[in-house]
Amino acid sequence: MSAKYLEDFAAGQIYRTACLRVAAEDIKAFAAQFDPQPFHIDEAAAQATLFGGLAASGWHTAALTMRLSVASEFAPAGGIIGAGFEELRWPLPVRPGDELCVEFEVLEVRPSKSRPGQGLLKMRMTTRNQDGKAVQVAVGTLVVPRRPG
Amino acid sequence: MSAKYLEDFAAGQIYRTACLRVAAEDIKAFAAQFDPQPFHIDEAAAQATLFGGLAASGWHTAALTMRLSVASEFAPAGGIIGAGFEELRWPLPVRPGDELCVEFEVLEVRPSKSRPGQGLLKMRMTTRNQDGKAVQVAVGTLVVPRRPG
Repeated sequence: MSAKYLEDFAAGQIYRTACLRVAAEDIKAFAAQFDPQPFHIDEAAAQATLFGGLAASGWHTAALTMRLSVASEFAPAGGIIGAGFEELRWPLPVRPGDELCVEFEVLEVRPSKSRPGQGLLKMRMTTRNQDGKAVQVAVGTLVVPRRPG
Repeated sequence: MSAKYLEDFAAGQIYRTACLRVAAEDIKAFAAQFDPQPFHIDEAAAQATLFGGLAASGWHTAALTMRLSVASEFAPAGGIIGAGFEELRWPLPVRPGDELCVEFEVLEVRPSKSRPGQGLLKMRMTTRNQDGKAVQVAVGTLVVPRRPG
Protein backbone atom coordinates (compact mmCIF):
# COMPACT_ATOMS: atom_id res chain seq x y z
CA MET A 1 0.00 0.00 0.00
CA SER A 2 1.40 3.42 -0.96
CA ALA A 3 0.58 6.73 0.70
CA LYS A 4 -1.87 8.86 -1.24
CA TYR A 5 -1.90 12.61 -1.85
CA LEU A 6 -4.88 14.89 -2.33
CA GLU A 7 -4.57 14.44 -6.11
CA ASP A 8 -5.11 10.67 -5.72
CA PHE A 9 -8.58 11.08 -4.25
CA ALA A 10 -11.83 11.74 -6.07
CA ALA A 11 -15.45 12.01 -4.97
CA GLY A 12 -17.21 8.67 -5.20
CA GLN A 13 -14.20 6.52 -4.33
CA ILE A 14 -14.88 3.74 -1.84
CA TYR A 15 -12.32 2.15 0.49
CA ARG A 16 -12.98 -0.79 2.78
CA THR A 17 -11.04 -1.85 5.86
CA ALA A 18 -10.44 -5.31 7.29
CA CYS A 19 -12.89 -6.45 10.00
CA LEU A 20 -12.46 -7.18 13.70
CA ARG A 21 -14.49 -9.01 16.30
CA VAL A 22 -15.46 -7.26 19.53
CA ALA A 23 -15.46 -9.50 22.62
CA ALA A 24 -17.41 -8.81 25.81
CA GLU A 25 -14.06 -8.43 27.60
CA ASP A 26 -12.98 -5.70 25.16
CA ILE A 27 -16.24 -3.81 25.73
CA LYS A 28 -15.86 -4.00 29.51
CA ALA A 29 -12.15 -3.12 29.53
CA PHE A 30 -12.63 0.01 27.43
CA ALA A 31 -15.64 1.06 29.48
CA ALA A 32 -13.89 0.50 32.81
CA GLN A 33 -11.28 3.01 31.73
CA PHE A 34 -13.34 5.58 29.84
CA ASP A 35 -17.10 5.05 30.12
CA PRO A 36 -17.96 3.12 33.30
CA GLN A 37 -21.75 3.02 32.97
CA PRO A 38 -23.78 -0.14 33.84
CA PHE A 39 -24.79 -0.88 30.22
CA HIS A 40 -21.10 -0.98 29.18
CA ILE A 41 -19.50 -2.87 32.08
CA ASP A 42 -21.92 -5.44 33.52
CA GLU A 43 -24.15 -7.90 31.62
CA ALA A 44 -26.66 -8.28 34.46
CA ALA A 45 -26.99 -4.56 35.23
CA ALA A 46 -27.25 -3.81 31.50
CA GLN A 47 -30.49 -5.84 31.23
CA ALA A 48 -32.47 -3.20 33.10
CA THR A 49 -31.24 -0.28 30.98
CA LEU A 50 -32.29 1.30 27.68
CA PHE A 51 -29.85 -1.07 25.93
CA GLY A 52 -31.38 -4.28 27.36
CA GLY A 53 -27.94 -5.93 27.50
CA LEU A 54 -24.23 -5.23 27.28
CA ALA A 55 -23.31 -2.72 24.56
CA ALA A 56 -20.04 -1.05 23.60
CA SER A 57 -19.45 2.61 24.42
CA GLY A 58 -19.90 4.72 21.29
CA TRP A 59 -16.37 6.02 21.90
CA HIS A 60 -15.11 2.44 21.84
CA THR A 61 -16.79 1.94 18.47
CA ALA A 62 -15.19 5.20 17.29
CA ALA A 63 -11.75 4.08 18.52
CA LEU A 64 -12.09 0.65 16.85
CA THR A 65 -13.16 2.39 13.64
CA MET A 66 -9.95 4.41 13.81
CA ARG A 67 -7.86 1.29 14.41
CA LEU A 68 -9.33 -0.41 11.34
CA SER A 69 -8.85 2.77 9.31
CA VAL A 70 -5.18 3.23 10.21
CA ALA A 71 -4.42 -0.34 9.09
CA SER A 72 -6.32 -0.01 5.80
CA GLU A 73 -5.22 0.86 2.26
CA PHE A 74 -7.02 4.21 2.53
CA ALA A 75 -3.64 5.60 3.78
CA PRO A 76 -3.39 9.31 2.97
CA ALA A 77 0.21 10.60 3.03
CA GLY A 78 0.92 12.16 6.41
CA GLY A 79 -1.61 9.94 8.15
CA ILE A 80 -5.30 10.10 8.97
CA ILE A 81 -5.73 13.52 10.56
CA GLY A 82 -9.28 14.62 11.27
CA ALA A 83 -10.08 18.32 11.13
CA GLY A 84 -13.52 17.66 12.54
CA PHE A 85 -16.84 15.92 12.07
CA GLU A 86 -20.21 17.32 11.14
CA GLU A 87 -22.05 14.11 11.90
CA LEU A 88 -21.32 11.27 14.30
CA ARG A 89 -24.04 8.87 15.35
CA TRP A 90 -24.55 5.31 16.47
CA PRO A 91 -27.72 3.93 14.84
CA LEU A 92 -27.40 0.52 16.55
CA PRO A 93 -25.49 -0.72 19.61
CA VAL A 94 -22.36 -2.86 19.20
CA ARG A 95 -22.90 -6.16 21.04
CA PRO A 96 -20.39 -8.77 22.29
CA GLY A 97 -19.29 -10.95 19.37
CA ASP A 98 -20.12 -8.37 16.70
CA GLU A 99 -17.67 -8.18 13.81
CA LEU A 100 -17.05 -4.64 12.58
CA CYS A 101 -15.76 -3.39 9.21
CA VAL A 102 -15.56 0.18 7.96
CA GLU A 103 -16.39 1.65 4.56
CA PHE A 104 -14.95 5.04 3.52
CA GLU A 105 -16.68 7.07 0.83
CA VAL A 106 -14.95 10.17 -0.54
CA LEU A 107 -17.62 12.90 -0.72
CA GLU A 108 -15.56 15.92 -1.72
CA VAL A 109 -11.93 16.84 -2.47
CA ARG A 110 -10.76 20.44 -2.26
CA PRO A 111 -7.42 22.26 -2.00
CA SER A 112 -6.98 24.46 1.07
CA LYS A 113 -7.33 28.18 0.39
CA SER A 114 -5.00 29.24 3.19
CA ARG A 115 -2.39 26.43 3.07
CA PRO A 116 -1.10 25.71 -0.45
CA GLY A 117 0.53 22.39 0.51
CA GLN A 118 -2.67 20.91 1.92
CA GLY A 119 -6.16 19.97 0.97
CA LEU A 120 -9.33 18.74 2.61
CA LEU A 121 -11.10 15.46 2.05
CA LYS A 122 -14.72 15.21 3.10
CA MET A 123 -15.55 11.59 3.91
CA ARG A 124 -18.40 9.43 5.10
CA MET A 125 -17.12 6.59 7.27
CA THR A 126 -19.70 3.88 7.94
CA THR A 127 -18.94 1.14 10.45
CA ARG A 128 -21.06 -1.96 9.90
CA ASN A 129 -21.65 -5.15 11.86
CA GLN A 130 -21.69 -8.72 10.51
CA ASP A 131 -25.28 -8.21 9.30
CA GLY A 132 -24.21 -5.24 7.19
CA LYS A 133 -26.08 -2.84 9.48
CA ALA A 134 -24.54 0.53 10.36
CA VAL A 135 -23.45 0.85 13.99
CA GLN A 136 -21.66 4.17 13.44
CA VAL A 137 -21.93 6.85 10.76
CA ALA A 138 -19.33 9.63 10.73
CA VAL A 139 -19.10 12.46 8.21
CA GLY A 140 -15.96 14.49 8.61
CA THR A 141 -13.07 16.30 7.01
CA LEU A 142 -9.48 15.08 6.87
CA VAL A 143 -6.36 17.13 6.23
CA VAL A 144 -4.30 15.62 3.38
CA PRO A 145 -1.06 16.92 1.83
CA ARG A 146 -0.92 17.83 -1.86
CA ARG A 147 1.59 15.99 -4.03
CA PRO A 148 4.93 17.78 -3.73
CA GLY A 149 6.47 19.57 -6.72
CA MET B 1 -25.25 13.93 43.48
CA SER B 2 -28.75 12.84 42.46
CA ALA B 3 -29.80 11.65 39.02
CA LYS B 4 -31.63 14.26 36.98
CA TYR B 5 -34.66 13.92 34.73
CA LEU B 6 -35.51 15.93 31.62
CA GLU B 7 -37.57 18.32 33.76
CA ASP B 8 -34.45 19.21 35.80
CA PHE B 9 -32.60 20.63 32.78
CA ALA B 10 -33.00 24.05 31.19
CA ALA B 11 -31.24 25.84 28.35
CA GLY B 12 -28.35 27.93 29.63
CA GLN B 13 -27.36 25.64 32.51
CA ILE B 14 -23.63 25.01 32.86
CA TYR B 15 -22.02 21.94 34.44
CA ARG B 16 -18.30 21.47 35.00
CA THR B 17 -16.41 18.23 35.53
CA ALA B 18 -13.28 17.55 37.55
CA CYS B 19 -9.96 17.72 35.67
CA LEU B 20 -7.38 15.08 34.80
CA ARG B 21 -3.78 15.17 33.67
CA VAL B 22 -2.75 13.35 30.49
CA ALA B 23 0.72 11.73 30.63
CA ALA B 24 2.84 10.85 27.58
CA GLU B 25 2.45 7.19 28.58
CA ASP B 26 -1.37 7.49 28.46
CA ILE B 27 -1.20 9.06 24.99
CA LYS B 28 1.06 6.30 23.67
CA ALA B 29 -0.89 3.45 25.33
CA PHE B 30 -4.21 4.57 23.85
CA ALA B 31 -2.66 5.14 20.44
CA ALA B 32 -0.88 1.76 20.42
CA GLN B 33 -4.27 0.12 20.80
CA PHE B 34 -6.50 2.33 18.65
CA ASP B 35 -4.61 4.94 16.63
CA PRO B 36 -1.00 3.83 16.01
CA GLN B 37 0.22 6.76 13.94
CA PRO B 38 3.72 8.28 14.46
CA PHE B 39 2.45 11.57 15.94
CA HIS B 40 0.57 9.64 18.67
CA ILE B 41 3.09 6.94 19.61
CA ASP B 42 6.67 8.22 19.26
CA GLU B 43 8.08 11.60 20.39
CA ALA B 44 10.96 11.58 17.89
CA ALA B 45 8.88 10.54 14.87
CA ALA B 46 6.20 13.08 15.87
CA GLN B 47 8.64 15.98 15.40
CA ALA B 48 8.58 15.61 11.62
CA THR B 49 4.76 15.55 11.35
CA LEU B 50 2.04 18.17 11.10
CA PHE B 51 1.82 18.10 14.91
CA GLY B 52 5.52 18.88 15.51
CA GLY B 53 5.57 16.68 18.61
CA LEU B 54 3.60 14.03 20.47
CA ALA B 55 -0.16 14.68 20.54
CA ALA B 56 -3.10 12.64 21.81
CA SER B 57 -5.43 10.93 19.36
CA GLY B 58 -8.65 12.91 19.06
CA TRP B 59 -10.49 9.71 20.04
CA HIS B 60 -8.43 9.59 23.22
CA THR B 61 -9.49 13.15 24.01
CA ALA B 62 -13.10 12.13 23.31
CA ALA B 63 -12.79 9.06 25.58
CA LEU B 64 -11.23 11.13 28.40
CA THR B 65 -14.01 13.69 28.00
CA MET B 66 -16.50 10.86 28.50
CA ARG B 67 -14.65 9.59 31.59
CA LEU B 68 -14.76 13.06 33.18
CA SER B 69 -18.42 13.43 32.23
CA VAL B 70 -19.53 10.11 33.73
CA ALA B 71 -17.91 11.04 37.07
CA SER B 72 -19.45 14.52 37.16
CA GLU B 73 -22.59 15.92 38.78
CA PHE B 74 -24.16 16.34 35.34
CA ALA B 75 -25.63 12.83 35.91
CA PRO B 76 -28.86 12.43 33.94
CA ALA B 77 -31.04 9.56 35.22
CA GLY B 78 -30.39 6.47 33.10
CA GLY B 79 -26.83 7.58 32.31
CA ILE B 80 -25.15 9.63 29.62
CA ILE B 81 -26.49 8.18 26.37
CA GLY B 82 -25.57 10.02 23.19
CA ALA B 83 -28.03 9.94 20.30
CA GLY B 84 -25.46 11.58 18.07
CA PHE B 85 -23.30 14.63 17.44
CA GLU B 86 -23.67 17.37 14.87
CA GLU B 87 -20.25 18.83 15.60
CA LEU B 88 -17.04 17.27 16.89
CA ARG B 89 -13.71 19.00 16.39
CA TRP B 90 -10.30 19.34 17.95
CA PRO B 91 -9.15 22.98 17.69
CA LEU B 92 -5.81 22.29 19.42
CA PRO B 93 -3.77 19.12 20.05
CA VAL B 94 -3.62 17.62 23.55
CA ARG B 95 0.04 17.44 24.63
CA PRO B 96 1.76 15.34 27.32
CA GLY B 97 1.17 16.96 30.72
CA ASP B 98 -1.98 18.81 29.67
CA GLU B 99 -4.73 18.95 32.27
CA LEU B 100 -8.22 18.61 30.82
CA CYS B 101 -11.58 19.67 32.24
CA VAL B 102 -14.98 19.65 30.54
CA GLU B 103 -17.77 22.23 30.54
CA PHE B 104 -21.33 21.22 29.61
CA GLU B 105 -23.78 23.84 28.39
CA VAL B 106 -27.43 22.89 27.95
CA LEU B 107 -28.54 24.35 24.61
CA GLU B 108 -32.05 22.93 24.26
CA VAL B 109 -34.46 20.66 26.15
CA ARG B 110 -37.32 18.95 24.34
CA PRO B 111 -39.66 16.04 25.04
CA SER B 112 -39.56 13.23 22.48
CA LYS B 113 -42.54 13.15 20.11
CA SER B 114 -42.42 9.41 19.55
CA ARG B 115 -41.43 8.20 23.05
CA PRO B 116 -43.48 9.76 25.84
CA GLY B 117 -41.11 8.63 28.61
CA GLN B 118 -38.06 10.29 27.07
CA GLY B 119 -36.69 13.60 26.01
CA LEU B 120 -33.69 15.01 24.21
CA LEU B 121 -31.05 17.32 25.59
CA LYS B 122 -28.94 19.25 23.11
CA MET B 123 -25.56 20.05 24.68
CA ARG B 124 -22.30 21.73 23.90
CA MET B 125 -19.40 19.94 25.61
CA THR B 126 -16.15 21.87 25.58
CA THR B 127 -12.95 20.20 26.77
CA ARG B 128 -10.31 22.73 27.81
CA ASN B 129 -6.64 22.50 28.73
CA GLN B 130 -4.88 24.14 31.68
CA ASP B 131 -4.69 27.42 29.71
CA GLY B 132 -8.47 27.46 29.28
CA LYS B 133 -8.14 26.77 25.57
CA ALA B 134 -10.57 24.41 23.85
CA VAL B 135 -9.01 21.13 22.71
CA GLN B 136 -12.36 19.55 21.81
CA VAL B 137 -15.78 20.98 21.04
CA ALA B 138 -18.71 18.59 20.75
CA VAL B 139 -22.33 19.53 20.10
CA GLY B 140 -24.67 16.61 20.44
CA THR B 141 -27.96 15.24 21.67
CA LEU B 142 -28.47 13.02 24.70
CA VAL B 143 -31.44 10.80 25.49
CA VAL B 144 -32.80 11.55 28.97
CA PRO B 145 -35.83 9.99 30.73
CA ARG B 146 -38.76 12.17 31.83
CA ARG B 147 -39.64 12.21 35.52
CA PRO B 148 -41.95 9.25 36.21
CA GLY B 149 -45.56 9.78 37.23
